Amino acid sequence: MTDIALVTGAHGSIGRNVAVTLAHQGWTVHGIGHGGWGAEERRSWGIESWTESDISLAELRSLDIRPDIIVHCAGSGSVGASISDPHQDFHRTVSATACVLEFMRSECPQATLVYPSSAAVYGIAEHFPIREDAALRPASPYGAHKRQAEDLVRDHARLFNLNAAVVRLFSIYGEGFRKQLLWDACRRICADETEFFGTGLETRDWLHVSDAAKLMIRAADHAGPHCPVANGGFGVAVTVADIVGELFDLMGKNDRPVFCGTERQGDPRDYQADISRAMAWGWRPSVDWRAGLSRYATWFRKECGLE
Amino acid sequence: MTDIALVTGAHGSIGRNVAVTLAHQGWTVHGIGHGGWGAEERRSWGIESWTESDISLAELRSLDIRPDIIVHCAGSGSVGASISDPHQDFHRTVSATACVLEFMRSECPQATLVYPSSAAVYGIAEHFPIREDAALRPASPYGAHKRQAEDLVRDHARLFNLNAAVVRLFSIYGEGFRKQLLWDACRRICADETEFFGTGLETRDWLHVSDAAKLMIRAADHAGPHCPVANGGFGVAVTVADIVGELFDLMGKNDRPVFCGTERQGDPRDYQADISRAMAWGWRPSVDWRAGLSRYATWFRKECGLE
Repeated sequence: MTDIALVTGAHGSIGRNVAVTLAHQGWTVHGIGHGGWGAEERRSWGIESWTESDISLAELRSLDIRPDIIVHCAGSGSVGASISDPHQDFHRTVSATACVLEFMRSECPQATLVYPSSAAVYGIAEHFPIREDAALRPASPYGAHKRQAEDLVRDHARLFNLNAAVVRLFSIYGEGFRKQLLWDACRRICADETEFFGTGLETRDWLHVSDAAKLMIRAADHAGPHCPVANGGFGVAVTVADIVGELFDLMGKNDRPVFCGTERQGDPRDYQADISRAMAWGWRPSVDWRAGLSRYATWFRKECGLE
Repeated sequence: MTDIALVTGAHGSIGRNVAVTLAHQGWTVHGIGHGGWGAEERRSWGIESWTESDISLAELRSLDIRPDIIVHCAGSGSVGASISDPHQDFHRTVSATACVLEFMRSECPQATLVYPSSAAVYGIAEHFPIREDAALRPASPYGAHKRQAEDLVRDHARLFNLNAAVVRLFSIYGEGFRKQLLWDACRRICADETEFFGTGLETRDWLHVSDAAKLMIRAADHAGPHCPVANGGFGVAVTVADIVGELFDLMGKNDRPVFCGTERQGDPRDYQADISRAMAWGWRPSVDWRAGLSRYATWFRKECGLE
């Protein structure tokens, strides 16, 4: 009998990559969350069974599995939406995590929980690269609720002797991501638009989703009641101008982007991860941002019938 | 037209004292929470209207009032229950606070929120008296969830420019309290029991509920988006042995208590508040523990038909 993994939010961009990586390592993977897909597509992502529902305690219990590992990827995914509807963001991130923790405490206290948090918990940092012990000053409800979910995980691990670990993901991207900067930029570039939000000087630390998935599974080996936290980034700050400029090249356009200069509410200007802790766990990111963008652009061109 | 106050959990021991203090100061007080009472009893506590329900966003909106001040007293009230059912404790404390904050943000952003937190957020402190900037290491889900509710309040105040203040209550007691140490001790003493939990050397900082209510209303004057925090205690550590011994005297018993020595899970040994911040707000506690115990014992004797 193989070991059993439960991935919440497994239909999402990060969740499905975690699922397929676990499956490749021999785990039997069950998924729960929102999103419909056919059996073939689901199995191509390594997911043995799929329950389409909210992450509630009743639904988790009715899965009738007692997982050995839980990777809790479900949660809100948008800074902007968290500002316009903070209460929904609270439910999707904090309340859902409380349900997963209660399921674990009451049904499978021997399991290991890995929680993908976000660099948004740091907010506007003072020192770069950002270390895990930096002050947490989230600049949006999204970041605030991620920090609260982290606290819930940490408190439960300590108070109920559960095994947990937290990975703070920076800018995760990869083939198949139909949102955020790369997706928006490729669509604009294809539409011959050249104007972009922001100043272009904002920096992000880009980590390919395949590297992020491996880090989350690696984190499980270090989980414990002390609930360690590791940053998930590449360790390199890249400007938005560099990213978008590279995408113009990859899409075969000679235009250059123009930045309108407006800042986006709730989004700190800079991010760069100190990844020494994750590297001390034996993990190394393998896809640098130029190689990753090239893969992304190839996928995008195919996806949009440009090849 | 008078100013409108909303007190959640107004049927509880602390909530009703906040309500009656607000009413005496000229506020029109509305209450919501669990607990049934007749119109006469309710009005004797200064409560104009009462809605018996959970603290949900829909219920808050259906009150059809837009308060100028909200004192959010609803929430779980037991360390022991939080250990046996942490998920319910999360809902009663954290989720309910998220609903109050969303109600405030969306319906009455000009209101002032006062949140009574708990000394349990400190957990096992290193220095006494405990200052508000001490490390927070809650030793129970009750304390952890109170800290999370505080964080929600603080984050919302900062991110949405709402006026809020937090008061961390120590051991609140008063006539009418039918739970916790004083109630249990008086009942045991009346039943000629002499054995008590713990070592008797545990210390608590006792604040009479009338002083606590005045502090919470005073805190509203200092509320803001920076969400100040003040301890609510008397500033004096009293041993459990001293409290119980005094109650033996007040109940007219010559026996002395015997302590069995077992410690209670999740309960730190010592508490003593540094109350300089609350005093800098112009507040002073007025009922010391001996005077307060005397009032409590008089009430208890009458309540139990011993007079």
